[in-house]
Amino acid sequence: MKVPDKFDKFIYTLIIANVIAMILESHASIRAVYQDYFYVFELISIIIFSFEYFYRIVVGFKSAGIKGASKYIFSTFGLIDLISILPFYLNQFIKIDGRFVRILRLFRLTRIFKLGRDSASLKLFVQALSAVRNELKFTLFLSILTILFSASAIYFLENEAQPEKFSSITESIWWATVSLATVGYGDVYPITVGGKAFAAIISLVGIGIVAIPTGIISASFVEEIIAAKRRKER
Amino acid sequence: MKVPDKFDKFIYTLIIANVIAMILESHASIRAVYQDYFYVFELISIIIFSFEYFYRIVVGFKSAGIKGASKYIFSTFGLIDLISILPFYLNQFIKIDGRFVRILRLFRLTRIFKLGRDSASLKLFVQALSAVRNELKFTLFLSILTILFSASAIYFLENEAQPEKFSSITESIWWATVSLATVGYGDVYPITVGGKAFAAIISLVGIGIVAIPTGIISASFVEEIIAAKRRKER
Amino acid sequence: MKVPDKFDKFIYTLIIANVIAMILESHASIRAVYQDYFYVFELISIIIFSFEYFYRIVVGFKSAGIKGASKYIFSTFGLIDLISILPFYLNQFIKIDGRFVRILRLFRLTRIFKLGRDSASLKLFVQALSAVRNELKFTLFLSILTILFSASAIYFLENEAQPEKFSSITESIWWATVSLATVGYGDVYPITVGGKAFAAIISLVGIGIVAIPTGIISASFVEEIIAAKRRKER
Amino acid sequence: MKVPDKFDKFIYTLIIANVIAMILESHASIRAVYQDYFYVFELISIIIFSFEYFYRIVVGFKSAGIKGASKYIFSTFGLIDLISILPFYLNQFIKIDGRFVRILRLFRLTRIFKLGRDSASLKLFVQALSAVRNELKFTLFLSILTILFSASAIYFLENEAQPEKFSSITESIWWATVSLATVGYGDVYPITVGGKAFAAIISLVGIGIVAIPTGIISASFVEEIIAAKRRKER
Repeated sequence: MKVPDKFDKFIYTLIIANVIAMILESHASIRAVYQDYFYVFELISIIIFSFEYFYRIVVGFKSAGIKGASKYIFSTFGLIDLISILPFYLNQFIKIDGRFVRILRLFRLTRIFKLGRDSASLKLFVQALSAVRNELKFTLFLSILTILFSASAIYFLENEAQPEKFSSITESIWWATVSLATVGYGDVYPITVGGKAFAAIISLVGIGIVAIPTGIISASFVEEIIAAKRRKER
Repeated sequence: MKVPDKFDKFIYTLIIANVIAMILESHASIRAVYQDYFYVFELISIIIFSFEYFYRIVVGFKSAGIKGASKYIFSTFGLIDLISILPFYLNQFIKIDGRFVRILRLFRLTRIFKLGRDSASLKLFVQALSAVRNELKFTLFLSILTILFSASAIYFLENEAQPEKFSSITESIWWATVSLATVGYGDVYPITVGGKAFAAIISLVGIGIVAIPTGIISASFVEEIIAAKRRKER
Repeated sequence: MKVPDKFDKFIYTLIIANVIAMILESHASIRAVYQDYFYVFELISIIIFSFEYFYRIVVGFKSAGIKGASKYIFSTFGLIDLISILPFYLNQFIKIDGRFVRILRLFRLTRIFKLGRDSASLKLFVQALSAVRNELKFTLFLSILTILFSASAIYFLENEAQPEKFSSITESIWWATVSLATVGYGDVYPITVGGKAFAAIISLVGIGIVAIPTGIISASFVEEIIAAKRRKER
Repeated sequence: MKVPDKFDKFIYTLIIANVIAMILESHASIRAVYQDYFYVFELISIIIFSFEYFYRIVVGFKSAGIKGASKYIFSTFGLIDLISILPFYLNQFIKIDGRFVRILRLFRLTRIFKLGRDSASLKLFVQALSAVRNELKFTLFLSILTILFSASAIYFLENEAQPEKFSSITESIWWATVSLATVGYGDVYPITVGGKAFAAIISLVGIGIVAIPTGIISASFVEEIIAAKRRKER
């Protein structure tokens, strides 16, 4: 038993409507006037998403018993579905601190990623990622090491000259990430000769290291695309 | 029947002259002195471009009837040709608001892209793009999702601390795009611990996602170049 | 004779604990309270790392005599091990200037890079690097030339207008590296017409040159991954 | 007849010494003390480089007559050699404006690029560039079109709000290049809604276009490296 296509399309439309509502609601001027409407819309959405969640569990159960149900529950999209509705209920039943609610609302956003679910390219993309799985893990690990190393080094070199901006290694990680990802906002940068010399060298080497995962994903993706095309041609 | 080469070359020269005129005209000091000359040149150019437009329709018609004419009209370059002359006429016959004229003048710029028309590399480039068409759509879609997700998250995290700069999700999209495209002007950046932590993580992951389309295009282009070379060698 | 796995895992755990300790210690507020604990932990760590160093030499000696011992001593990880403990002893026996100690402590960080030691991907990555060894050297050399050239040119073009920021070619290397690595903090940038024109042109060409090593490493890595997969399939 | 290896090595050493001298001379404090020494060193260098230039012409002439001599004169390195010595003589015989001398001195820097002359990788690199010659021209042309288009569009959108920063299209080219090359110093950026919306969209598309040449060069280089390796294995 499968979830009917029409239901899927309705859910997609609702997700997009939810995202648009959230964007509109973020404007103080719009929120001031339509706050109640937004709340009602959120309520209806949560009810529908909750229904969807249990419906998919049932569909899974009917097709393959407990195994089918738990297959959905512990799948990526099953977890996303749960995460996006759970905070609403937690908020109703338990007294939660305002700040925490704010963070929990973030999880509603994960629904966005359900939109690409049916794409044939997604399958190819996941294949491409899984083909270089170990190498990606390794290069991401290398990136994190490089960031940690850069952050610690710049802390030792700049802390004395800029105790406010490079107050600790934790704080310096911000500089290291922003620099090695080549964003470079300009809110923190080295000013001592040693700091600049280190930053210049680590820029050339470190940026290369941090950029490797992206290069691997792209190259692997194109490999999969070509392989898929060859399979078709045969 | 084909458009003669000499005519094409004349049109190319005129396009370049138009671009140069537009650049010169944008300097307040030059505009002050030569404004009338620029207007006359614009007028003559529009007449020639209009003639070109109808001439190409006629050429299309003579070679393959209505089908030939409409083939040109609805081709990319046919639409560019129309878009680049239409605003001028609209402006003459209808009273348009000054602001809107400004935006319409932008369309004159699209002519620039006609310059590459005859390049053999363009054909190869279009082939390369079309070979990864679906994957490009998917990764661009993924990029937009990532930007939307980042913008919403940073809005929730930074809005309280910087209500001016992260005033709404719409406004935060600016930060997300500038950051994930690694431009990083430095006009907006997170200052809270939560915002910085999120920005650091999304930098490493998100920049990779946003950079994938470029990687795919490059890799696909090189594939096409190699394939074209092999075809030649045989 | 090999170093037992359990010992390796213990050392890895200790390295991670050391990194965490160093990060925590960098926070002035934490250091103020727990300084003594950090010192004791550092002392114990150095003793264990020193034991590890001599243990590995002995293991090398027992398996292949002097050759085995020196093989470890002069290996990359052997040198990292020595560099990370040596500064502590130097500091005890010789009176070293405070500033220099700071720099020597940086070497403790190199231990971080021991964490990836056993990864199968590391082997593949080293192979990928070594396959394009000469080309990497060449493109890094080209990058340095481009940086030197850009720094000198911008010095001649901007020194008069911004004598503070482009005070010498050495100082301009900072601008060149930050720009060509596309970080662009915004602390230094050209303001003269000549400087901007040069910076714009060198941006398009130079960034390409500086990015080539990264592109080569990624492409070579993917080549090695594919080759390794083919070997497995056979 | 060939130029002896020892002579080549001497010239390389002299080039490096010249670059170091130029870097040192750029420091006001060093120049103040050693100005005369720098002048003498420059004089001796120019004499040797001039001798080198004529010597290479003679070597060319002896091996293949006028054809051999002119082959060197009009080669890339022949032109670099001439350009790097000519300004000195022009400066001696003709009264040149101080500003112009400054710019001419820049040409001395081109000598730097002679250092990579004998590298085997250079040959492979030139091959890689020449294999994608037409495509590089096309994508560089596309990059320039994109920059011109972006500059014009942002001028129309931002000129009213920031007449100082986006004073003309020429001035806006600076913004377009810095943004599309992802440097983003932060000295100029759009502030209007229209400008930000355009900049966000063009960032995603334009950065991709500007980055394609680099991607092509890297991919082509790796192709050549692999092809060279296969030739060796046979």
